[in-house]
Amino acid sequence: MTRTETGPDTTAELPDEVSTPRDAATASAALEVDVAWLGEYLLGRWAEDRKASRALVSREEFQFVGNLSYQEHRARVLGQLHRLVEEDAVHRAFPKSLGGRDDHGGNIAAFEELVLADPSLQIKSGVQWGLFAAAILHLGTEEHHEKFLPDALSLAVPGAFAMTEIGHGSDVASVATTATYDEATDEWVIDTPFRAAWKEFLGNAALHGRAAVVFAQLITKGVNYGVHAIYVPIRDASGALLPGVSSEDDGLKGGLNGIDNGKLAFDHVRVPRTNLLNRYGSVDEHGDYSSPIESPGRRFFTMLGTLVQGRVSLDGASTLAAKAALHIAITYGSQRRQFTAGTSDEEVLLDYQRHQRRLLPRLAQTYAMSFAHEEFLDIFDRVFSGVEDTPATREDLETIAAALKPLSTWAGLEILQEAREACGGAGFMAENRLTQLRADLDIYATFEGDNNVLLQLVAKRLLTDYARKFKNADAGAMAQYVAGQVGEATVNRTGLRQLGQAIADFGSRARSVGFVRDEASQRQLLTDRVHTAVAELAGKLRPASKLSPADAAALFNRYQNDLILTARAHGELLQWEAFTRALAGVPEGDTKQVMTWLRDLFGLGLIEKDAAWYLTHGRLSGQRAEAITAYIDDRLLPRIRAHAVELVAAFGLTPELVRAPLASGGEQLRQDEARAYYAALRESGEAPVDEKSLRSAKKERPQSSR
Amino acid sequence: MTRTETGPDTTAELPDEVSTPRDAATASAALEVDVAWLGEYLLGRWAEDRKASRALVSREEFQFVGNLSYQEHRARVLGQLHRLVEEDAVHRAFPKSLGGRDDHGGNIAAFEELVLADPSLQIKSGVQWGLFAAAILHLGTEEHHEKFLPDALSLAVPGAFAMTEIGHGSDVASVATTATYDEATDEWVIDTPFRAAWKEFLGNAALHGRAAVVFAQLITKGVNYGVHAIYVPIRDASGALLPGVSSEDDGLKGGLNGIDNGKLAFDHVRVPRTNLLNRYGSVDEHGDYSSPIESPGRRFFTMLGTLVQGRVSLDGASTLAAKAALHIAITYGSQRRQFTAGTSDEEVLLDYQRHQRRLLPRLAQTYAMSFAHEEFLDIFDRVFSGVEDTPATREDLETIAAALKPLSTWAGLEILQEAREACGGAGFMAENRLTQLRADLDIYATFEGDNNVLLQLVAKRLLTDYARKFKNADAGAMAQYVAGQVGEATVNRTGLRQLGQAIADFGSRARSVGFVRDEASQRQLLTDRVHTAVAELAGKLRPASKLSPADAAALFNRYQNDLILTARAHGELLQWEAFTRALAGVPEGDTKQVMTWLRDLFGLGLIEKDAAWYLTHGRLSGQRAEAITAYIDDRLLPRIRAHAVELVAAFGLTPELVRAPLASGGEQLRQDEARAYYAALRESGEAPVDEKSLRSAKKERPQSSR
Repeated sequence: MTRTETGPDTTAELPDEVSTPRDAATASAALEVDVAWLGEYLLGRWAEDRKASRALVSREEFQFVGNLSYQEHRARVLGQLHRLVEEDAVHRAFPKSLGGRDDHGGNIAAFEELVLADPSLQIKSGVQWGLFAAAILHLGTEEHHEKFLPDALSLAVPGAFAMTEIGHGSDVASVATTATYDEATDEWVIDTPFRAAWKEFLGNAALHGRAAVVFAQLITKGVNYGVHAIYVPIRDASGALLPGVSSEDDGLKGGLNGIDNGKLAFDHVRVPRTNLLNRYGSVDEHGDYSSPIESPGRRFFTMLGTLVQGRVSLDGASTLAAKAALHIAITYGSQRRQFTAGTSDEEVLLDYQRHQRRLLPRLAQTYAMSFAHEEFLDIFDRVFSGVEDTPATREDLETIAAALKPLSTWAGLEILQEAREACGGAGFMAENRLTQLRADLDIYATFEGDNNVLLQLVAKRLLTDYARKFKNADAGAMAQYVAGQVGEATVNRTGLRQLGQAIADFGSRARSVGFVRDEASQRQLLTDRVHTAVAELAGKLRPASKLSPADAAALFNRYQNDLILTARAHGELLQWEAFTRALAGVPEGDTKQVMTWLRDLFGLGLIEKDAAWYLTHGRLSGQRAEAITAYIDDRLLPRIRAHAVELVAAFGLTPELVRAPLASGGEQLRQDEARAYYAALRESGEAPVDEKSLRSAKKERPQSSR
Repeated sequence: MTRTETGPDTTAELPDEVSTPRDAATASAALEVDVAWLGEYLLGRWAEDRKASRALVSREEFQFVGNLSYQEHRARVLGQLHRLVEEDAVHRAFPKSLGGRDDHGGNIAAFEELVLADPSLQIKSGVQWGLFAAAILHLGTEEHHEKFLPDALSLAVPGAFAMTEIGHGSDVASVATTATYDEATDEWVIDTPFRAAWKEFLGNAALHGRAAVVFAQLITKGVNYGVHAIYVPIRDASGALLPGVSSEDDGLKGGLNGIDNGKLAFDHVRVPRTNLLNRYGSVDEHGDYSSPIESPGRRFFTMLGTLVQGRVSLDGASTLAAKAALHIAITYGSQRRQFTAGTSDEEVLLDYQRHQRRLLPRLAQTYAMSFAHEEFLDIFDRVFSGVEDTPATREDLETIAAALKPLSTWAGLEILQEAREACGGAGFMAENRLTQLRADLDIYATFEGDNNVLLQLVAKRLLTDYARKFKNADAGAMAQYVAGQVGEATVNRTGLRQLGQAIADFGSRARSVGFVRDEASQRQLLTDRVHTAVAELAGKLRPASKLSPADAAALFNRYQNDLILTARAHGELLQWEAFTRALAGVPEGDTKQVMTWLRDLFGLGLIEKDAAWYLTHGRLSGQRAEAITAYIDDRLLPRIRAHAVELVAAFGLTPELVRAPLASGGEQLRQDEARAYYAALRESGEAPVDEKSLRSAKKERPQSSR
């Protein structure tokens, strides 16, 4: 029956004569995944930095403990930060001259692993060295580095990154704090003009911060030069607020309670003119402004762009949390039994199709996230190390960040939740960590750029690239492109990847039997999904150029949701391509076969999720769409289930990193004990008879006695 | 453009000449929703009980306070339970002879409102009166009521409901605790034979419980009569564990930390024979077993069925939490501004299409959940009050419970999360309650029946009903039914609702222009979705009867995911029908118009979500599917956005019930202050000039000076 539904399997990789999920599982089980090799491969270019960080995370002193008040948790995490300094664990990104290593990629790799100790530790480190000190490094100049960085690096001066205000979060350009130059004293006057301008949600603001990098509208000689960053001391050595500085404590939060988030306000606080972090904008003693970047808009985005590493690290940390969640849920699911299924033995949870459907596509997604993150980190490193630092690579880096960070932070939350539910009540026990990790990572979806806002940036980039490509095309050609079926390659130059030739033969391959299973077909379907949606949106938004600003905005708003969905599809394509490139690096053999199935599960899962789009656009027939679902159910899930435990083992998460009793093997021990008990009871001859068998015996007896 | 895409709008309710979302919003804004009337309507049949409970919830003494250790939180909630007794707030379901009111529906209505105070308070009350005392009431007989209920009701004896074991949660029939009759002493010997048989996750077990209703395999004269409940004292008046009883504390959990969940084990603990709660199964002094229900299977399900009220109340509590979440997010979204959109004013969040897409379908869903819950509660009351207590109504009640509880508990979590993210960083602050409610309600998805397990029960019922209907049909007729397009009404008698005639004209209406918008079309699409899927599954599973048990189980497993998705679609249909019936009770006028749009958003949203199914099954053309999406975007969202604030106001959640500073109007005050500041600054003539305007002025100046 299955065979009829899915059509003949023409998968090239393996002669495939199986006809049931059980046969697929059995054939797959004969393959051997090289877990050790795969584990190293996953660790990637900065494996040593990751391992060093994991060694720290494995120590109790850095780990989260539950049932603390937020005050106690904050004190504990501050102490841990000092210990990280002592361990020389957090300065990789800084100049060698200041004790660092000028190693940007390695720094992020090591940093994101801290999430496994306690996300509060990760994020408070991020506030201190990834935001506060990094702003001094990237927005300041030599003088600032020498003057401010040593104390920031050593944690002698804990610092806040005072960008967000109560009134303006995503729209940083509109912050209302002002820094006005006073020529008379050669000082900046920092001021919070009203309540909505209070700086808000800042780590280190409530308690520990001694200074802040304050983002304010820079005003000199009656002109506002836009948002700039200024180094502002906020507390003295005793911890008392300096004159004119106010602070409020955000108190308890949904998670990350090891961080002292709070508010800051400034009432005409004065700092020296030279406290302006002036790499991208300076004011001289006469109050005259100058900048190496003439365009105010480009200057603003350049300054913000130096802070992209927060998004890089959240992408990596979310991927790690997803790995931990799947390690826990798949380990438990491979041991836990519940209900019988046609035999006297109870069934292992992971043998239930629904359980596979819940966890295995998430496993494929996590591998995709992991490989995409490694590429992302590599690009980040090339830009920040100066190896390939051009406006174009910076723009690409930011687009990738805006595409990947939303996908992985949302996926992290969803995977933690699915893992929690898949472990039932045990998943809800704090000791098993899933709930706390989820609570902590919740905010990852909206900080360092709200996910929905970031995806709009991606959509804008896709439209801009599209417009560049077609700037000489007349409207007719464009309309044809939009309306028609995409019949040939359209090389989307978002700078993110090269499409290659695969899409060229769309028409013919799309009709071939079994076409959905191979790499080229997945690529062409996923690519076409993005290209066509962008082209359609470009067509719909085309009238905007002739409308009033308000009407143009209304038109854009009408398609805002589509824009975001398209950006999301683009991010998924990036992940799929990264997985596929990583697959090319796996040597031929069993491991490559299993990894290919995993990649297929990711790719076909994306197509299945967006099936309605492919169907309405004539890219898939209904029969073909159903065949994809059947192929996932009949082949891919059983094949991957056979290796699920090895595939999470390759994440390399030792018991010290996982720390979930649920996944420690206790479940298996309990079951073994129970089985031994029942076996002994049966052997003793004292096992009670089941009422049901007694009843059927009774029913038979009267008959036979008649 | 919009018009071309969606086709002419033939909505019957209103002459509809608008052509843009803005026009749709403007026309809708002219309507007046009768918030007071709608609020009462939503409160339903047990409005008075709900109001009484809300009055209690409004008092600080019953409300959650943050940053407590779990030990402090537990002590606080225990104290609150005693106060609930003093307020006579928790005995409605119990017999008048014991101070109750014999009011089952009113009891649940009042109980579920407690979630607004603190879900720990709700669930700990549920453990005491909804599980422990209710088990005595429903599984015990007169003697037990007199002996045990007074102390259970007064909380003199806090009690645990000892059903779940570490080894068996969802599969209650397999619990391993034994109760063996000892004729010599006329006692039950309660025993925990191995670690997996420890009772686990029980509220009141760690600390406060003095007794437990223990579910154990009942063994007498060498025969196991299956799972029965026995009343077992576990602690003395000083709180010390009784001999043979062991307890472990579950400690910190992901939420609900006001409840002292823990484990219990019994080492040959003896209780009198008469402690067996023997309504459905008795043992006399000779050790002979008797039961009013002969079939062991039916007896077991009858006993479990008396505990359905847990599912009823979780459905209601999740719906209430969703209302609170939407109250918070929509209030904030209607005040908060961020980014400009073509004018100098910043845009209100809720005017962004994406924000509407995130929140307004959830609003429609919450109304559907609310109306469905009221019907559910009504059926529950009819069964439990004895007004309509038959095996058939009990079976229907359980199927409804198994269909609605998963949908609403999942929706509650999703809505709390979407609301959290829609409020950005402010949503993450504990004071705004979204994160804590989400953490507490997390476990609702897997307790009182794991959601995935419950949906399988629904699927089995759908298949059973289908099989009954076709038991005389030959295989050919069935195959035809399965394979073909459903051309005429198939009255699905799940006892849940009557289909009526709407589906009969499927063929013709499906082709008519604009058909998707009216009620009959929504009904037929949603109904057909369920019927066809059930028929298809029945066909696929048909060979099972000829297979070995193991092969049959494998075949069922192959379609487990489809079964669950079908059950889910069935539950959604139940919600849509409840909404539609409720709509019929709204008087003609503006309120009915807005409510109709809201129902349409729910119905069309379901069809949009399952578009791939409708497309692959030929129920919708691609063009029609796109028209549904366009209709939602162009008409329904803008129309409902115009009344979103009123629609959440109708939930009747006063500031004391919501308690989220985020939604208190502070955002509006801050914005007003900021605007006033900028207006005054402009008026003063001292506002700094923007660099950009300066730069364009400079560019112009050289030209004009030449």
